[in-house]
Amino acid sequence: MKRTILSLVAVALATVTMTAQEALWSGTQVQSPVVNVDGTVTFSIFAPQAQKVQVTGTFLPTKMVETPMGKWEQPGVADLQKDEKGVWTFTSTALESELYTYNVIVDGMLMLDPANVYVNRDVASLTSLFIVKGEKGSKGDLYSVNEVPHGNLAKVWYDSPMLGMKRRMSIYTPPGYDEGKDYPVLYLLHGAGGDEDAWPTQGRTVQILDNLIAAGKAVPMVVVMPNGNADCQAAPGEWPRGMYQPSFMESVNPRTQPKATMDESFMDIVNYVESHFKVRKDKAHRAVCGLSMGGGHSFHISKRFPDKFDYIGLFSAGLHIGGDQTKAFYDLLKGNDTVQKQLATLFAANPKLYWIGIGETDFLYRQNADLRRYFDEKGYKYTYRETDGGHIWRNWRIYLTEFAQLIFK
Amino acid sequence: MKRTILSLVAVALATVTMTAQEALWSGTQVQSPVVNVDGTVTFSIFAPQAQKVQVTGTFLPTKMVETPMGKWEQPGVADLQKDEKGVWTFTSTALESELYTYNVIVDGMLMLDPANVYVNRDVASLTSLFIVKGEKGSKGDLYSVNEVPHGNLAKVWYDSPMLGMKRRMSIYTPPGYDEGKDYPVLYLLHGAGGDEDAWPTQGRTVQILDNLIAAGKAVPMVVVMPNGNADCQAAPGEWPRGMYQPSFMESVNPRTQPKATMDESFMDIVNYVESHFKVRKDKAHRAVCGLSMGGGHSFHISKRFPDKFDYIGLFSAGLHIGGDQTKAFYDLLKGNDTVQKQLATLFAANPKLYWIGIGETDFLYRQNADLRRYFDEKGYKYTYRETDGGHIWRNWRIYLTEFAQLIFK
Repeated sequence: MKRTILSLVAVALATVTMTAQEALWSGTQVQSPVVNVDGTVTFSIFAPQAQKVQVTGTFLPTKMVETPMGKWEQPGVADLQKDEKGVWTFTSTALESELYTYNVIVDGMLMLDPANVYVNRDVASLTSLFIVKGEKGSKGDLYSVNEVPHGNLAKVWYDSPMLGMKRRMSIYTPPGYDEGKDYPVLYLLHGAGGDEDAWPTQGRTVQILDNLIAAGKAVPMVVVMPNGNADCQAAPGEWPRGMYQPSFMESVNPRTQPKATMDESFMDIVNYVESHFKVRKDKAHRAVCGLSMGGGHSFHISKRFPDKFDYIGLFSAGLHIGGDQTKAFYDLLKGNDTVQKQLATLFAANPKLYWIGIGETDFLYRQNADLRRYFDEKGYKYTYRETDGGHIWRNWRIYLTEFAQLIFK
Repeated sequence: MKRTILSLVAVALATVTMTAQEALWSGTQVQSPVVNVDGTVTFSIFAPQAQKVQVTGTFLPTKMVETPMGKWEQPGVADLQKDEKGVWTFTSTALESELYTYNVIVDGMLMLDPANVYVNRDVASLTSLFIVKGEKGSKGDLYSVNEVPHGNLAKVWYDSPMLGMKRRMSIYTPPGYDEGKDYPVLYLLHGAGGDEDAWPTQGRTVQILDNLIAAGKAVPMVVVMPNGNADCQAAPGEWPRGMYQPSFMESVNPRTQPKATMDESFMDIVNYVESHFKVRKDKAHRAVCGLSMGGGHSFHISKRFPDKFDYIGLFSAGLHIGGDQTKAFYDLLKGNDTVQKQLATLFAANPKLYWIGIGETDFLYRQNADLRRYFDEKGYKYTYRETDGGHIWRNWRIYLTEFAQLIFK
């Protein structure tokens, strides 16, 4: 039946010729991007009227730019070439197995690739998306949906008494969950500007966990991805504030002063999960980690509740403990008795893993180096992982992949 | 802590001046769209280099175009005006409470509104999205997230023995589900080119159900939104076929011949839901409805399993029962003994509601009129709803809203 209906529609559309309709379908006249057999990728943009078409994205070499805050990565830009039909193309060098995001720039207008429906949202920036899959076990393979058992992903509303509101979170339950029991729980926290949708989309959490569990490299676990902004209920568009434009630079909901901080209220999440899911309820079966602001949250949550988490992960963590932020973080730490006592209590309880990961060009590198220096002096055990690149999702997917293999074992 | 990290990032970004970076952030220099207090909507596009900027979308008056298949709706187009800063603007007339989708056309390139992160995917077309909320109980209000108890939405993998694969579906559980029991189930089916993500996104299923349940206009129910393409496992990008470009015109997976049709295999879905969710398992607590191809599926499923569903809804249904498709559907019906017998059995069992809805300019209007003529002749009871407009999501959201209020009562 489907074919019949489609052919009816095709006839109807084919007979309708008009400017807008042509524009609406113009993007589909080409296939883009195409991952070629040699690992290069070809981008094709149908833009007969354009004077200049470029592509910018994470697949191009980045340039490091010096700023007062340290080095910052500038995305590369490449020019496309036009053929006689008005199709502009560019073919990359052979790319390593990875997930890439990009935009097209047509006469100065930044846009998505019109022929690619896969869209990535990072705060307020939309990019097109592709994966170079590569060999089994490579990054691109781990970030892909493969022929393995799949876990489920739910958007769940829970009550946070401490924040005085219902809030939304993403929860991954592993393959076989309905028949299983006693799962450990990983709490996985996003960065500033992000929300409960960040890890399941940009972080490829579902694919990474499905693939690691299928390969026997991670144990089946529940993964809880809450919203880390204590002043809002949910991701943009998913709560009554409406379809506002998310921002990296300002508070999510400047009209409201949160009743508590994210780390103060964190047990509301744990309590909900442990009363609604088939999970273990002890320290040995709880892990907390996060990126950037979420790394800071993990730092605070783990020391605020030192008997709750045996596995702690700081991914490019943004650490803030008050005081004069022009001072080195090491000095702030040495001057803050409360934080020092909390850390002493945490490490006295011997957490099984305190994992710190950061990129060598991350603007938060020094903060994290200061934390490690302090831990070294105190004899607090931690595992350190340094990657290349900066404060980027490529690193956070790597850190999740590695951290998930170390916990609950 | 969040503010501190953000200010660090802001400083870093502010000092990095470069073409690509400027382009990346250019869309955020304006706010667009803005719903004004008088109900008009202003679109603003920063495009200093552009010669011509237009907007096209469902908020503009459509023009009906004659085609061999009947009338077809052509989207309206409006020109934006440029100011001295390179910002192009257009303000609509006052719009009724509704959800609208649109695109911007910059020098012939169709694109999303760069300042709007809310994106709607319809098969392979991406559009920007906004809602004019309006009064309580209006369409825009029903499609919005309001301060009401929220149900959860899960992406669930189930086993379909008849199709020989694991498949993905979207399942809405109403507010209070964890504490409740014995819920009725609505099976809600998408159209050709669609998938299990269509109803939760374009159909605003979660918002409509949350709002109707909160208002006491619909009973709390589980809503199951499966993938109606028997030749694939899941939505594009969500199964191992990878990030292919979805198409309206061809089969989802032309490489594979499905082992069964969607309606033949439908009890695989019902069996999974009834063994994994807290639902009633009788005819009085099952409803099936769908749009276009999914309306056809509902037609076939309900007569194939005449003792299973007390509530049946055909939304702009695409009806196909084999035979020569150049013949009127009425003649096909009269010539098909099997279908006639199935319908006779179905109506002999007195379903509580057989609901048919269609737009007066829908290209499938005549088919559905033929079905009604046949039902009238046979004395089969049904409820008929005709709206203006054609084969469009605006109608399907209306039909879901109305149908959901009629079932399980």
